[in-house]
Amino acid sequence: MPTSPHTERHFTGGQIVRDVVIGMSDGLTVPFALAAGLSGAVAASRIVVTAGLAEVAAGSIAMGLGGFLAARSDAEHYAAELARERREVTEVPELEVAEVEGFFAQYGLDRSQVAAVIDAFRRVPAAWVEFMLRFELGLERPDPAQALRSAVTIAVAYIAGGLVPLLPYFFTSSTSRALLPSVALTAVALLLFGFVKGRYTTGRAGRSAFQTLVVGGLAAAAAFGLARLFS
Amino acid sequence: MPTSPHTERHFTGGQIVRDVVIGMSDGLTVPFALAAGLSGAVAASRIVVTAGLAEVAAGSIAMGLGGFLAARSDAEHYAAELARERREVTEVPELEVAEVEGFFAQYGLDRSQVAAVIDAFRRVPAAWVEFMLRFELGLERPDPAQALRSAVTIAVAYIAGGLVPLLPYFFTSSTSRALLPSVALTAVALLLFGFVKGRYTTGRAGRSAFQTLVVGGLAAAAAFGLARLFS
Repeated sequence: MPTSPHTERHFTGGQIVRDVVIGMSDGLTVPFALAAGLSGAVAASRIVVTAGLAEVAAGSIAMGLGGFLAARSDAEHYAAELARERREVTEVPELEVAEVEGFFAQYGLDRSQVAAVIDAFRRVPAAWVEFMLRFELGLERPDPAQALRSAVTIAVAYIAGGLVPLLPYFFTSSTSRALLPSVALTAVALLLFGFVKGRYTTGRAGRSAFQTLVVGGLAAAAAFGLARLFS
Repeated sequence: MPTSPHTERHFTGGQIVRDVVIGMSDGLTVPFALAAGLSGAVAASRIVVTAGLAEVAAGSIAMGLGGFLAARSDAEHYAAELARERREVTEVPELEVAEVEGFFAQYGLDRSQVAAVIDAFRRVPAAWVEFMLRFELGLERPDPAQALRSAVTIAVAYIAGGLVPLLPYFFTSSTSRALLPSVALTAVALLLFGFVKGRYTTGRAGRSAFQTLVVGGLAAAAAFGLARLFS
């Protein structure tokens, strides 16, 4: 994978951080909203626990396996485009030259200014192919182990997030007694998660904490209202 | 947004298709698994409908709003990096020249071969900045209307997908009678969705249909098993 000289300076969170964020954003929000929503409609904690665990199982599998299949299909897409560019560079090099020229023309460079670059590419077709993939198509060579690693990270983060709002429902049989502790516990978890996420991504931790709490709160309020309406 | 001369040939689905896929993948899977899981644990359809609608409300808000905030933070990230690259091109042009050189060196080009390119960039700093953003950092200029459009598309797709498995539960009071029609209806929807998704993305429609069905089926089976265990 080609890395630019000062990637670290522009660091916005590695793949693991990104996968934890993907899994935990939904894991903290949806099971929480479901538990809060059901608490407005049913009295027995057992039903909330059953529905909550069913949701966490379904959500973690859907997201983890979905992430796995998406990463694998990205890898296949890369392989297909690699084969296509290789063929084109060999069979229709003049068309590829025109593409490179058209491409630099967007940045104000004329044919004479890129002539040396094209000469160099003609001599090393493998480098030319790699260049086309990254700069024409925006594709990076995928890491073959990434699909599985992403799937597991996303699923585990979803489960970890999803168990937080359900915890209080394990310790009491009445949903009305579990609701407030669940809301409080999840609010703290959402703020904390949003804060850490902000630190690793945009750098604006406070705003991220607030936004994460608002998304979770809105989802829970909508679920609560709708469940009340239908019960 | 810079577009390459033959983007169409490599077309792998526009933003709307991508957003529909994001929303509907989870929308068809998680509410389905939740409904199936609860059917193994409770007898009254009303509870499945309540939990299902709460989940659909929570999931569509979490995904839609999550997509909105992610797109907005991408836009802010772009603006911040644009300002940074502008500053660097003006204040430390020699460092930026070294970056461009180091960057083409990965593709086997030496300094003399990119000298003309660098000369051209020095004369048009705005083009240089744009080039650095796209090629060093892989960033494309974001469309300001995209965040809202993505949010709405994802949420609507999630709701549309999520209502499919719940439909049979509206028409009977017994979960055991609704379960089979729900499974059958959702299986057809998953196959159809997977097929169309495959057509628009990887081009392998049959395999995509099968995979989508397997993910939905696994999630539902896990939810069903877990809900049985806890009830």
